Amino acid sequence: MSIDPSRLGPMANAIRALSMDAVQAANSGHPGMPMGMADVATVLFSQFLKFDPAAPKWSDRDRFVLSAGHGSMLVYALLHLTGYASPTIEDIRKFRQLDSVCAGHPENFLIPGVECTTGPLGQGFAMAVGMALAERHLNATFGDELVDHRTWVIAGDGCLMEGINHEAVGLAGTLKLGRLNVLWDDNKITIDGDTSLSTSEDILGRYAASGWHVASCDGHDFADIARALAEAAADPRPSLVACRTVIGKGAPNKQGGHNVHGSPLGADEVAAARAYLGWTAAPFEVPADILADWRSLGARGAEARAAWEARAAASDKGAELARRMAGDLPAGDDAAQTFAAWLDGAQKVATRKASEMALEVLTPLVPEMVGGSADLTGSNNTKTKATPPLTAADYSGRYVYYGIREFGMAAAMNGMALHGGVIPYGGTFLVFADYCRNAIRLSALQHARVIYVLTHDSIGLGEDGPTHQPVEHVMSLRMIPNLNVFRPADVIETAEAWQLAVAARHTPSALILTRQNLPQLRDAANSAGELRSARGAYRLKAAAAQRKVVLLATGSEVELAVKVAGALEGQGIGADVVSMPCWELFDAQDAAYRADLLPAGVLKVSIEAGVTLGWQKYVGDGLTIGLDRFGASAPAEVLFEHFGFSVEKIVPQILARLA
Amino acid sequence: MSIDPSRLGPMANAIRALSMDAVQAANSGHPGMPMGMADVATVLFSQFLKFDPAAPKWSDRDRFVLSAGHGSMLVYALLHLTGYASPTIEDIRKFRQLDSVCAGHPENFLIPGVECTTGPLGQGFAMAVGMALAERHLNATFGDELVDHRTWVIAGDGCLMEGINHEAVGLAGTLKLGRLNVLWDDNKITIDGDTSLSTSEDILGRYAASGWHVASCDGHDFADIARALAEAAADPRPSLVACRTVIGKGAPNKQGGHNVHGSPLGADEVAAARAYLGWTAAPFEVPADILADWRSLGARGAEARAAWEARAAASDKGAELARRMAGDLPAGDDAAQTFAAWLDGAQKVATRKASEMALEVLTPLVPEMVGGSADLTGSNNTKTKATPPLTAADYSGRYVYYGIREFGMAAAMNGMALHGGVIPYGGTFLVFADYCRNAIRLSALQHARVIYVLTHDSIGLGEDGPTHQPVEHVMSLRMIPNLNVFRPADVIETAEAWQLAVAARHTPSALILTRQNLPQLRDAANSAGELRSARGAYRLKAAAAQRKVVLLATGSEVELAVKVAGALEGQGIGADVVSMPCWELFDAQDAAYRADLLPAGVLKVSIEAGVTLGWQKYVGDGLTIGLDRFGASAPAEVLFEHFGFSVEKIVPQILARLA
Repeated sequence: MSIDPSRLGPMANAIRALSMDAVQAANSGHPGMPMGMADVATVLFSQFLKFDPAAPKWSDRDRFVLSAGHGSMLVYALLHLTGYASPTIEDIRKFRQLDSVCAGHPENFLIPGVECTTGPLGQGFAMAVGMALAERHLNATFGDELVDHRTWVIAGDGCLMEGINHEAVGLAGTLKLGRLNVLWDDNKITIDGDTSLSTSEDILGRYAASGWHVASCDGHDFADIARALAEAAADPRPSLVACRTVIGKGAPNKQGGHNVHGSPLGADEVAAARAYLGWTAAPFEVPADILADWRSLGARGAEARAAWEARAAASDKGAELARRMAGDLPAGDDAAQTFAAWLDGAQKVATRKASEMALEVLTPLVPEMVGGSADLTGSNNTKTKATPPLTAADYSGRYVYYGIREFGMAAAMNGMALHGGVIPYGGTFLVFADYCRNAIRLSALQHARVIYVLTHDSIGLGEDGPTHQPVEHVMSLRMIPNLNVFRPADVIETAEAWQLAVAARHTPSALILTRQNLPQLRDAANSAGELRSARGAYRLKAAAAQRKVVLLATGSEVELAVKVAGALEGQGIGADVVSMPCWELFDAQDAAYRADLLPAGVLKVSIEAGVTLGWQKYVGDGLTIGLDRFGASAPAEVLFEHFGFSVEKIVPQILARLA
Repeated sequence: MSIDPSRLGPMANAIRALSMDAVQAANSGHPGMPMGMADVATVLFSQFLKFDPAAPKWSDRDRFVLSAGHGSMLVYALLHLTGYASPTIEDIRKFRQLDSVCAGHPENFLIPGVECTTGPLGQGFAMAVGMALAERHLNATFGDELVDHRTWVIAGDGCLMEGINHEAVGLAGTLKLGRLNVLWDDNKITIDGDTSLSTSEDILGRYAASGWHVASCDGHDFADIARALAEAAADPRPSLVACRTVIGKGAPNKQGGHNVHGSPLGADEVAAARAYLGWTAAPFEVPADILADWRSLGARGAEARAAWEARAAASDKGAELARRMAGDLPAGDDAAQTFAAWLDGAQKVATRKASEMALEVLTPLVPEMVGGSADLTGSNNTKTKATPPLTAADYSGRYVYYGIREFGMAAAMNGMALHGGVIPYGGTFLVFADYCRNAIRLSALQHARVIYVLTHDSIGLGEDGPTHQPVEHVMSLRMIPNLNVFRPADVIETAEAWQLAVAARHTPSALILTRQNLPQLRDAANSAGELRSARGAYRLKAAAAQRKVVLLATGSEVELAVKVAGALEGQGIGADVVSMPCWELFDAQDAAYRADLLPAGVLKVSIEAGVTLGWQKYVGDGLTIGLDRFGASAPAEVLFEHFGFSVEKIVPQILARLA
């Protein structure tokens, strides 16, 4: 089962050959990284990584994250060579073409063996922190017998230079995630040229200062690589291994320079590389003996998996782990019953508080929920009695103090969700969704069930002023495909949002919540036994007089819309109030439902304390009441009045349009 | 002129008293930081900072940045006590109210003595890096006689934990910005509790690893503070001084705990603090002798300023420095004439290349332009012959290799623009605008002339796939108030965008540029001697047959719109083509102009390779052609066809709507 050391060189060259051939055929791509890290990857896969090509979703496999996702051919080559069903050699031949799963950057939703979608620099590394955290959490819950694996990362200079790296390193160091091992492709080259152009950092020194184990190796010396990886695996701290490599290793005239990073080698240099490497096989062909060596590696993992399957079958915890890893929710409707009882109340609370109330119901019932906040626990109201702290001393906890690390938190949550067995939710102020916006995007792209708790959602936060007042954020989040953006209007809609978010297996959700109190608008009479938010929008109040106006609002402005409707009805003007907590779910309804809510020939008016751009989709040439400028610093009620969010200022505008 | 050391205690207590009084009166705010850092700030202002309250915009003043902006009362107290015209004591009494300039967080556009708007954590620090960089650049250009000042920062744990800090520290270390001195409020408390909850970092070790000088002091021992600040000032490297403080120092029952961070002390604790500090003056009153001590400090700066004024008047470079600092552009219309000549050509180039061509014209003429890229120089096309590298060895250069640090770059550019004397522009891929989105927002909020060069603007980038293909980004940027978003359609519109961006003194601009080539659409005949993009949108082609359709498009889709119009005209259907490079400028036109372009009763059709949400603003119930999903990995032309951006797929949809 163990590979003769003399075979490692040819095996690594198979990665190099496939990589340069695929990039050349596509006339697009990045040969430098796969060729430079081929030796390190060969040692990792042949001697360390626990994997079974026959079962890419086996829950106790090691996770391998190619954080430097532009080097995608590295992972495609590895998966193909080791015998995964996907990608096929045909896929690799069609690298970067529309009908191939071998996309420009590795995409988890196209290939089961790709653990996460990488390319946006720094985020693969940070997702790996989340995977390693999920592993320790599940280990603490299910024991070494069922959960005992590592997370291995290949990262480049870009991953380490990005700001998110500081957050990921700090989080991993504080949580002592010793099962996380990062192999840094230390090639001293970035796109612009030598790394010295832009950095003078002692990287190992920085990692050591954050509680990491650090090691170095010659990234082209198999024995030295194996030594360093063994050290990393043995150390109880997270590890960074600096693998000193030559970018594009094997391309005799281009290796070591920045031009080999992101362009095909060209036919001449490919030919020169083949000669240099002694590689005589035709393009996309791997000699049978070398392929056989690669294919033999899966046996170690297959054996481990068989043993694990036996343990899982014998364990009284096996079924529960399987449920969590499958992403199925626990059976029962206890939560729904509790929330239904709330309809009889009249709870005037901030929706951030309503969110906490909903979490107090859900977290005891859904043990895979793991919460947290980027240092705003008391403001985001994200911690419940069922979620004790998850710390280095006790990984069984369910609440992560992420620190002042919004981007790191979001990416870690992506990693936790993609690892499986965990439903992560985490909080920050809505305005700081900007800090983690690309990770939210990656939640959506990766189909990851991550729940963002975004509080302090408008000028309603008051005195903290425009730096902290979201204006464009709700609408901006609605722009991201496959993201459900909920802006609930009261305690009931908040509970509905949580139920829908937890149940959305392949879609992340953003819950947009107020700082200020909101009255309860929903009761049994206007709920009709339904989870009304599931349709995205619904008629909260039907016109009494002849309908001339439909008021559309979300969140804190639904209360105002109800008051405006009352004032209009007082003048004999019928007005519906439509609450629209989730546009994405509304857009998915059938045409008849949508047309019923938004009938033609009636003045439609939107009210939302944010930018109006976007509301025209629903109001057409109607009226948009919003805030198309930055806010100001003052108490909330002063600001709402000042910026025109009052019955007195809105009704005349509607009357003018009706005149 | 120098203060008796025995007076420093009462002076610091004046800061504490004003801070707790203002927060108490507002019933909102953050007393912990101003009270904790009062002693450090007193030493800084009394012995180190170069400032003249009578001339808050004096160009050679030291810059003071309160990166921990939530402690805004610290800077308000300092500015008032030292005798700046703003804020007045009335402003402070009305802290956090609508009619006060003393907003919840310090805002540069409200108070001249506030150098930048802070609160979003980490960004004040990173803006200070940009200020220190601008200082060294101008020093290299204008000499010690005219430019010779420092940048001082007060930062909290949050500023240091955020990812952007890693980027800012790396940039400052590599560029050896020795005039940058950061005073870290090392109080071991964050909002969630003790810093050990979320971090275990050896912060000084990390800074040392990035080439910084580090020092420590007892933040409540005036002599020790002065010693550390003197060390920092003397060291040629950027400095971090860990000031060991007690948060809320002076509030006897609450100091040292996280509850003093962000809530008023309460009447009882305010009374207790007064007793503890021996402060007997009424709320908002400062004893005359203490005020006199504070007011005496400005004399040192006034003297320095007078000497500087004399040197500037005598220098042959004084007028040029004054021009740059005033933000006036150089006289002359050489650039406009060059661009006008382009109308006679037929240059088929990518707009990123057109941008480079425009920069080659502008950068020699506008010496205050300083460019850069976040490690994508060859892709963003941001470097010109007139902009040699700006490095630690030669600060007179005009091109910054920012490294893989989008957020750090954007914040640094904000600092450069706010420092004055520099018009910064910097590039990254449009999709990574997500990484620096909150800094772009702060450009807009702060009225900072920063120009973002955002290339690879759609599925037109091709094979890199959905992680790199912006879909929602153009529209999301349009949501940010006071940001001009340009998406030019050809080489001419690109040159126009650059002219408008450079001239927009109080507004940042985002230039959204293609990777792929676009034909030249504009010539002398359809330009009429105007900078047509200045109106935001214009009729590029008028209908020949009777007008039934108006096609609205931006950037690379304008070419397609022209082809669609041609196909429609071929069927006798008149179609205008309106190019809309900048929505914000179009919205500022008068109603007649807007109505002329978008006449009622005609089918309007938008074509843009991004999300459709938002286009309804202009097309009403017309047709929106766009991409409401993530992209894919394939050559650009394949993707455009696949996703419906072709004459064959668009014309039938229009005909169906006309039928």
